[in-house]
Amino acid sequence: MSLIALISDFGEKDWFVGELKGVLYSIAPHTTIVDITHQIPPGDIRKAAFNLLASYKSFPKESIFCVAVSISTKTDCRSIVARTDNYTFIGPDNGVLSWVIPNDKHPIWCIENEFYIRKHPSSTFQARDIFGPAAAHISKGINPDILGPQITDIIRIPFPLPSVSPDKLEGEIIHIDSFGNAITNIRFSDLKTLKSPINTCNLDNRFDIPIKSQYQEVSHLERLCYVGSAGFMEIAVRDGDGASMMKIAAGQKVVIR
Amino acid sequence: MSLIALISDFGEKDWFVGELKGVLYSIAPHTTIVDITHQIPPGDIRKAAFNLLASYKSFPKESIFCVAVSISTKTDCRSIVARTDNYTFIGPDNGVLSWVIPNDKHPIWCIENEFYIRKHPSSTFQARDIFGPAAAHISKGINPDILGPQITDIIRIPFPLPSVSPDKLEGEIIHIDSFGNAITNIRFSDLKTLKSPINTCNLDNRFDIPIKSQYQEVSHLERLCYVGSAGFMEIAVRDGDGASMMKIAAGQKVVIR
Amino acid sequence: MSLIALISDFGEKDWFVGELKGVLYSIAPHTTIVDITHQIPPGDIRKAAFNLLASYKSFPKESIFCVAVSISTKTDCRSIVARTDNYTFIGPDNGVLSWVIPNDKHPIWCIENEFYIRKHPSSTFQARDIFGPAAAHISKGINPDILGPQITDIIRIPFPLPSVSPDKLEGEIIHIDSFGNAITNIRFSDLKTLKSPINTCNLDNRFDIPIKSQYQEVSHLERLCYVGSAGFMEIAVRDGDGASMMKIAAGQKVVIR
Repeated sequence: MSLIALISDFGEKDWFVGELKGVLYSIAPHTTIVDITHQIPPGDIRKAAFNLLASYKSFPKESIFCVAVSISTKTDCRSIVARTDNYTFIGPDNGVLSWVIPNDKHPIWCIENEFYIRKHPSSTFQARDIFGPAAAHISKGINPDILGPQITDIIRIPFPLPSVSPDKLEGEIIHIDSFGNAITNIRFSDLKTLKSPINTCNLDNRFDIPIKSQYQEVSHLERLCYVGSAGFMEIAVRDGDGASMMKIAAGQKVVIR
Repeated sequence: MSLIALISDFGEKDWFVGELKGVLYSIAPHTTIVDITHQIPPGDIRKAAFNLLASYKSFPKESIFCVAVSISTKTDCRSIVARTDNYTFIGPDNGVLSWVIPNDKHPIWCIENEFYIRKHPSSTFQARDIFGPAAAHISKGINPDILGPQITDIIRIPFPLPSVSPDKLEGEIIHIDSFGNAITNIRFSDLKTLKSPINTCNLDNRFDIPIKSQYQEVSHLERLCYVGSAGFMEIAVRDGDGASMMKIAAGQKVVIR
Repeated sequence: MSLIALISDFGEKDWFVGELKGVLYSIAPHTTIVDITHQIPPGDIRKAAFNLLASYKSFPKESIFCVAVSISTKTDCRSIVARTDNYTFIGPDNGVLSWVIPNDKHPIWCIENEFYIRKHPSSTFQARDIFGPAAAHISKGINPDILGPQITDIIRIPFPLPSVSPDKLEGEIIHIDSFGNAITNIRFSDLKTLKSPINTCNLDNRFDIPIKSQYQEVSHLERLCYVGSAGFMEIAVRDGDGASMMKIAAGQKVVIR
């Protein structure tokens, strides 16, 4: 039984997550379910895509990720399954999975076989009616080929790659976590492309922030930029909520040099 | 081992849900636990009853539902177990279970056997001390007869049924979900009683809202009424928070005709 | 497989809890994981310590508690494992575990063996990189001796014991729960030290609150003091949010006599 990990914008005030799990356990009673988060803002596809990108590599091989985030204008979009060497991803064809299946070499299926879809599916709860049953059946070992035809024309949202030049990296803030740490789109591995040693990160033309290897290298309430746990450069304030203190918002530009 | 599903008003800031699960796993180490929601407003019995009603049919047969929502004036109320053909329900005798055990043909027990109650039970944490142990023992297969006597005089809260006439259905808003969709007490199946085709839902004498089969039939930010995933008619705004935009509150009247 | 219970200040908006569970299940696929709470305010070591103290005794014997709450000034602190007769506790050496390992008779280890630490650990996510792998390996049965040397010089935060005299107990508010009940540091068992019967709890020199055995002994919206489910005396308002209504804050003094 493969583990099933969930990301959604359902929140936790209603029964939606619980009902989805009821469906999963009805089909695959011995599976293991992990909540990544259900607090994606409604329809925020990029935030869901980033939560998935930031976490999926820490899951056991053969894990199945079920991502239920879509905007209502897109409830007519296809339901897809993608399989990489180690993982299976299930969700709507709206780009939410594209940061973990960045190219076409991995097979992608469109879920169409009604045998694996809830009878009388609702018009609004794809996760319960389509993604969930597919995830549970895959957890039990079915071959995705049985779910529907392979497709290659899925919607892809390009990951906002930083601009790389020999002396600097230009990127942007892509996520602010609940501690107020601001995560950029610049990976630690991108730093290797620079010819000269780096020592500062300019944020939004407002702050020059020193690059450090850990919090302890700066004093209480001082700013720093460091390699975050997801492998991206992050901006923070030691012992403080950096995003609030520096009024950081997603999309603000950063330049590391 | 039957699955145990939980509904409570404990929130997630304290240790209450975790401690309850500690009790469940102490007695039934191999059970499976699902959180439906723990964010019922304190003592909101109707909201808990609706969360249970809306979700329980998606759970595996033999699932056990443990509902811990009561108002402090009622902590002296009995703890009950009810069993239907497919499910077992455990909670306080305050009406919270009555929408899923709507008649007297199913057996109901009062939990009195101290062997199955925590030693030195607290005066406030029935879920940990009474409901939880009962749920865990039932998950392991005990017969509810051993927990206490059968009773028939439980408190019932009538489900607010809509008023049905040949040309219209009159109901009310009973739940607003975290997306801002407003769920009415009118079931899709109620629509069959109407002699004439329906096409509009009047909300609170303020809005006439078209009935559609899915979001895609209206434009961005337009209102619609449709069959929601729980089988009830819902009012929403495409791509928006309908409840905020239309100032919808539970109890407002709706008329479908 | 021992159960692993989690306390953190990660919140539920990001992927941190999910990623930690991915690590746990990667190492110990058949373990059981329970969330106690992830809503500890960032770095609030005392609140985390109290959540652990209040709940741990309800968990199965051999459970492993993984507590990930630290302040950024302390990310250089040691990672420790402590084992009592019934439980194993894992977390940072910042005092967060000290209320459940109150003396030196139980063994404590410092996690140093890199084989049991994530390769290329981050500077910020000790739970994923150190505590989690240790918890999962202990769940599978390894002896903590293999993780690192035994130590005895851990940081201890003294539990704020009440002042006991023959005619009164002087304590303070140490936690306010999500219902607005205010928990004091005076245990029910402390009451036995008093020579005379108790009947009132003075709060903050502002209120004299009657001591009752349950809510039903006072009227709607009246104040009371009673033995809470964690064994500490609590102050509440029947059917109300006592902490808001009486403007109670942690640290306010209480005198029971």
